[in-house]
Amino acid sequence: MLSVMKYLKKMYPTVQLLYEPESSLYDDHHPSTSARTELGPNAIDPWSPDSNSAPVDLVITLGGDGTILRASSLFKTGPVPPVLSFSMGTLGFLLPFDIHDFQSIIRDTFEQRVTVLKRMRLACTIHDADGKEIGGSTSAGLQVMNEVVLHRGRSPHLSIVDVLVDGVHLTEAFADGLIVSTPTGSTAYSLSAGGPIVHPLAKALLLSPISPRSLSFRPVVLPETSKVTLMVNSKSRTPAEISMDGHEPSTGFRVLSPGQSVKVQESPYPIPCVRRTSIAGSEMNSERNGDCDIPDGDGRSDDWVRDINTLLQFNATFRNKGILKQIQSSGN
Amino acid sequence: MLSVMKYLKKMYPTVQLLYEPESSLYDDHHPSTSARTELGPNAIDPWSPDSNSAPVDLVITLGGDGTILRASSLFKTGPVPPVLSFSMGTLGFLLPFDIHDFQSIIRDTFEQRVTVLKRMRLACTIHDADGKEIGGSTSAGLQVMNEVVLHRGRSPHLSIVDVLVDGVHLTEAFADGLIVSTPTGSTAYSLSAGGPIVHPLAKALLLSPISPRSLSFRPVVLPETSKVTLMVNSKSRTPAEISMDGHEPSTGFRVLSPGQSVKVQESPYPIPCVRRTSIAGSEMNSERNGDCDIPDGDGRSDDWVRDINTLLQFNATFRNKGILKQIQSSGN
Amino acid sequence: MLSVMKYLKKMYPTVQLLYEPESSLYDDHHPSTSARTELGPNAIDPWSPDSNSAPVDLVITLGGDGTILRASSLFKTGPVPPVLSFSMGTLGFLLPFDIHDFQSIIRDTFEQRVTVLKRMRLACTIHDADGKEIGGSTSAGLQVMNEVVLHRGRSPHLSIVDVLVDGVHLTEAFADGLIVSTPTGSTAYSLSAGGPIVHPLAKALLLSPISPRSLSFRPVVLPETSKVTLMVNSKSRTPAEISMDGHEPSTGFRVLSPGQSVKVQESPYPIPCVRRTSIAGSEMNSERNGDCDIPDGDGRSDDWVRDINTLLQFNATFRNKGILKQIQSSGN
Amino acid sequence: MLSVMKYLKKMYPTVQLLYEPESSLYDDHHPSTSARTELGPNAIDPWSPDSNSAPVDLVITLGGDGTILRASSLFKTGPVPPVLSFSMGTLGFLLPFDIHDFQSIIRDTFEQRVTVLKRMRLACTIHDADGKEIGGSTSAGLQVMNEVVLHRGRSPHLSIVDVLVDGVHLTEAFADGLIVSTPTGSTAYSLSAGGPIVHPLAKALLLSPISPRSLSFRPVVLPETSKVTLMVNSKSRTPAEISMDGHEPSTGFRVLSPGQSVKVQESPYPIPCVRRTSIAGSEMNSERNGDCDIPDGDGRSDDWVRDINTLLQFNATFRNKGILKQIQSSGN
Ligand SMILES: NC(=O)C1=CN([C@@H]2O[C@H](COP(=O)(O)OP(=O)(O)OC[C@H]3O[C@@H](n4cnc5c(N)ncnc54)[C@H](O)[C@@H]3O)[C@@H](O)[C@H]2O)C=CC1
Ligand SMILES: NC(=O)C1=CN([C@@H]2O[C@H](COP(=O)(O)OP(=O)(O)OC[C@H]3O[C@@H](n4cnc5c(N)ncnc54)[C@H](O)[C@@H]3O)[C@@H](O)[C@H]2O)C=CC1
Ligand SMILES: NC(=O)C1=CN([C@@H]2O[C@H](COP(=O)(O)OP(=O)(O)OC[C@H]3O[C@@H](n4cnc5c(N)ncnc54)[C@H](O)[C@@H]3O)[C@@H](O)[C@H]2O)C=CC1
Ligand SMILES: NC(=O)C1=CN([C@@H]2O[C@H](COP(=O)(O)OP(=O)(O)OC[C@H]3O[C@@H](n4cnc5c(N)ncnc54)[C@H](O)[C@@H]3O)[C@@H](O)[C@H]2O)C=CC1
Repeated sequence: MLSVMKYLKKMYPTVQLLYEPESSLYDDHHPSTSARTELGPNAIDPWSPDSNSAPVDLVITLGGDGTILRASSLFKTGPVPPVLSFSMGTLGFLLPFDIHDFQSIIRDTFEQRVTVLKRMRLACTIHDADGKEIGGSTSAGLQVMNEVVLHRGRSPHLSIVDVLVDGVHLTEAFADGLIVSTPTGSTAYSLSAGGPIVHPLAKALLLSPISPRSLSFRPVVLPETSKVTLMVNSKSRTPAEISMDGHEPSTGFRVLSPGQSVKVQESPYPIPCVRRTSIAGSEMNSERNGDCDIPDGDGRSDDWVRDINTLLQFNATFRNKGILKQIQSSGN
Repeated sequence: MLSVMKYLKKMYPTVQLLYEPESSLYDDHHPSTSARTELGPNAIDPWSPDSNSAPVDLVITLGGDGTILRASSLFKTGPVPPVLSFSMGTLGFLLPFDIHDFQSIIRDTFEQRVTVLKRMRLACTIHDADGKEIGGSTSAGLQVMNEVVLHRGRSPHLSIVDVLVDGVHLTEAFADGLIVSTPTGSTAYSLSAGGPIVHPLAKALLLSPISPRSLSFRPVVLPETSKVTLMVNSKSRTPAEISMDGHEPSTGFRVLSPGQSVKVQESPYPIPCVRRTSIAGSEMNSERNGDCDIPDGDGRSDDWVRDINTLLQFNATFRNKGILKQIQSSGN
Repeated sequence: MLSVMKYLKKMYPTVQLLYEPESSLYDDHHPSTSARTELGPNAIDPWSPDSNSAPVDLVITLGGDGTILRASSLFKTGPVPPVLSFSMGTLGFLLPFDIHDFQSIIRDTFEQRVTVLKRMRLACTIHDADGKEIGGSTSAGLQVMNEVVLHRGRSPHLSIVDVLVDGVHLTEAFADGLIVSTPTGSTAYSLSAGGPIVHPLAKALLLSPISPRSLSFRPVVLPETSKVTLMVNSKSRTPAEISMDGHEPSTGFRVLSPGQSVKVQESPYPIPCVRRTSIAGSEMNSERNGDCDIPDGDGRSDDWVRDINTLLQFNATFRNKGILKQIQSSGN
Repeated sequence: MLSVMKYLKKMYPTVQLLYEPESSLYDDHHPSTSARTELGPNAIDPWSPDSNSAPVDLVITLGGDGTILRASSLFKTGPVPPVLSFSMGTLGFLLPFDIHDFQSIIRDTFEQRVTVLKRMRLACTIHDADGKEIGGSTSAGLQVMNEVVLHRGRSPHLSIVDVLVDGVHLTEAFADGLIVSTPTGSTAYSLSAGGPIVHPLAKALLLSPISPRSLSFRPVVLPETSKVTLMVNSKSRTPAEISMDGHEPSTGFRVLSPGQSVKVQESPYPIPCVRRTSIAGSEMNSERNGDCDIPDGDGRSDDWVRDINTLLQFNATFRNKGILKQIQSSGN
């Protein structure tokens, strides 16, 4: 992280560097006193979501898929600046770039030779049995990038949850839990629960059950304009735990009692993620992203195809001798 | 059918009635000589897709889901008039109305108290190994409402098919077959093959494998702008049979040899289907459908929710005692 | 429950009635003071698993599927007497008889006009990283009738669990959890997790993953002689919670840390369950069950077929108009 | 193949070599005139299933999984000699040995340092609507090693098939087809259709649907003593094609009309397959296999575990960086 900062400082001296003080919760790469010394005392400032400081133009994350989920959770109330994500080792679905290439990629980014993929987010609000909003969510709603989950958690008993779509009762679910996912989240928990793979540019919400007591609860793909409500059924013997992108809601409200509900819909604030293929420079277009000058990609699916094939081992056919031979030769 | 025609003739004497001569292939309700006698000699004329006669303003189908698929196949080259579909007994996904209610529904339709659901169709073209279009498809491409399927058919051997999305190679499938489906088709063959349920208003294409020799070929949801190519792999020991909405392509071209391919993308000509809930009259909007004056519905999901629950028995929870008791009491 | 007891006392005065004092935890039908008054002061005695009182000849359960799981958990160390289970309303997989018919069924049972289905149980022991048994399990091992589950519980992170079969490493599972199930348990949690339906007479163990982070973790059917070990991987960021038949182990040991494991194998003590079809009296055979004189059934599948069709709504075909009509007519 | 024969002739001169004349249908390795010249005129004789020549003591197959299925189909009426199977390149589920190691493996086999895995087969008979056997099947029934399939074949319409287990009606299937599989066959077609992986030593039959028009047709595991009947329903608009181990029945009877049925049960004649792990010599036991002196293995699961992991890529976790790195580095 330090070397990334030093590089930025050297190449783009007028850039104001900020860091997220909590990030040390997630990795060990957070700027130590020595870092500050090396960069100079005012080279880098802490940043907080509520700060009144100048708006952020670019977010850089370093670490696992969790770091970008964390970054997403910090931008709750308005447009999100483009996010440039580096993996520290393993590639990930949300991590197009390897840290070793950081110099050339940062250069491409600053020189606007990249495009972004706008990843849809969901805006969620939590409600009491009488419909009143609770849980202290912000005006724009809690923002999630992967999914909202209701789960029985430690309770030995199934939770019973009613699902409403645009106010119409769709079904009553007896299950370990339910997932409302973005296309981005379709390769996260929903995939484990048996859901389909949804291309990040498809305009859709995904409803997937977790271990439902039913032979016939198939995952459901809804229009992105749908408003989905998950309400703990009054018959449910147990409350249900909410989790958002794998964490409890940032407001700390964690458990829904019977009658309480969470409402989910598309957020007006997607996350513009700097894309791998875009580097080629050949596929710019002219739509602009807020204050930031990185154009949208045109939806070419190279990154995504590569990811589902190498990271998920999608359709690893038994006959795929290429893979097979490697496995054998590696004595695996 | 006769009574429907008589009713139309009586209520709307200036309406020109047409019938599809081939429809007798599909059911027994085709107008006999006696019908013509009863209605008067010029009351009803045969119609063919290529006819130069005046454009059709409304299509009425009577029969199973197959009748509307058939109607769809007749409109190949331009906008499709609204389709009003009656079931002759069983309700179906594509059959919102029961024939017993035909009078009131026809009245509502003529008086524009209904809305339509525009169901996406796919436009397909068939190509030789060198990319040249074959199979005599029309300019707009072959139109399908449910899905295109490539299947090994009677061959004992798996077919090997390459899937390309927007020109990028997604995967090589060893399988009984592959399905590219519309949201409408998601509750047809794709569902049997393990695919998710896609709401008809979701903008998406669905790629589902049929019995793939892989543990990891999950169904894939693509943006509706995707161009999908299915190409029989040159290693494939068998050709693959094409079927469109359950029939061989109307051009009669039925078998793809290794190297040949079918290309699929969203058609510019959806089918405007008269909707059940729209009858309520409360949810009109003002977008007009071509020459026809029936407005689009606003996407409320009542019909669809009812259909997946009653027709598919979606998420029939084991505890669903309502259903259970009925089954028991009926001695089933 | 009182009326069952009174009936037993009247018809079979020499029978010694016992009751399980904890059963009030599970339902409200537990003998009150008034019951004791009515039956006479010594008519009924409390019973506990450790009691030195005379062995039990027949267990009668009243309530949901949970009551028989509870009864199973009380017989830990030797052969189990036949179990006669009545539902108090809903039929269940483990509840062949309706309480309304109790008189005739008790008569059939006492007069040996019934047969039993021996339901396999699993014997489990819990081990430390060095292999030493912990958790205070009894000599015969903890007995489960449905399944043993390791689950991440409330932890937001996936658990990592190694699976060994007969000492050979089968796989490393990143998942919400893992299930080792009996054929009986195949219609319980395992079914929700995507497992196959296993006939109770099939000799097999079933390993099913719960929401695995893998596209290719298919459920596995093992010979009933297999010894399966689930060990929390040392890399696992979270411990895993054990649950047995939906409860924490009766020894109170609930959480496995990395390195700890649970070993599972077929128990020598199945549960002989009095069967519904056997009542017909036509399918006796001569194998005897311990001290009890109820013969084994011959494995005819009538009960099971009825159960999977009516309780699970197995293969409820969309065309199943019988069911459909009932649903519609009931205005559902 | 020639070199295998020469080796056998040299090492074990008293062994009588036979070959299956039809095998040239399956590969190119069939003994040519030159082979006969080299080996000597009487060194090798053709063999046919009906021949009255001396019984076979050992079968050697060379080729893909199909060659052992073919060998199985030749032994229809009695005990099968042990089968030693070599792959000519790709390993397969039924192909434990690589042809490169043939010398040491043949030596181990002749010196009885190997064990066998008895793979269950199914015995099938085909019946008319009135129950009379048709299709000219032999007395012991048609023998299959993987599975029997009923499939709609080229018909565009779903077939409707009734499933009976031990004479009790289990379900009416609207589907592309149905599979009754052995444990061995569980990794073949049934796996593609969504079935579980069944260990070859589990005593069970597996019923798996192919693309059923139902959300709730889960695969079913039955006791190996079950008698399963698949009968084409009289309502079925199409006949159903039978295939056995991927081929039409050897009697040439290929299509079942409505009312006709196929009955399936465990065959008394399993296939003793020489096993890989057994070579270690450490796990012999004393049960003898007919005239052949190779003992049964003790069911250790090493081979199987290796196969499902390397051949099927069972539970290839996304985090499996070992595999991942190889894929990346190979530029795949
Ligand atoms: N059974 C399961 O599969 C569970 C999955 N999760 C997922 O974990 C996510 C939180 O991730 P972390 O904070 O990293 O927790 P974590 O460290 O527990 O990792 C979960 C895994 O999911 C991967 N992941 C995250 N987002 C992804 C995406 N959009 N596509 C593909 N893979 C993705 C991560 O790389 C990591 O391998 C949640 O949003 C949820 O989707 C959470 C609980 C259970
Ligand atoms: N294994 C399977 O499930 C197979 C399904 N099909 C489907 O059959 C369709 C052709 O239908 P028909 O000419 O009526 O043939 P058909 O008479 O063979 O009926 C197929 C069944 O699918 C139903 N169906 C058709 N479209 C549907 C939709 N969009 N949503 C829900 N259900 C639907 C029909 O009502 C009928 O029950 C094809 O487009 C294909 O989707 C075709 C072959 C195999
Ligand atoms: N997501 C899920 O499906 C979950 C299922 N369970 C199951 O609950 C069982 C405990 O049952 P209860 O104490 O009654 O808890 P419970 O009151 O939470 O009920 C669980 C449901 O499973 C049913 N059930 C239990 N055993 C069954 C069997 N062998 N076949 C078919 N259905 C069965 C019960 O009738 C009840 O509907 C556990 O052994 C586990 O199998 C537990 C947690 C989650
Ligand atoms: N969609 C599918 O998966 C289909 C599968 N098959 C299977 O093909 C078998 C016939 O095999 P071939 O004559 O070689 O035809 P084939 O050359 O078409 O090969 C089928 C594939 O199945 C593999 N296979 C065969 N038996 C296996 C087993 N027990 N476990 C794991 N893999 C196995 C073969 O190695 C080959 O890769 C049939 O018994 C049937 O199981 C047949 C048709 C469709």
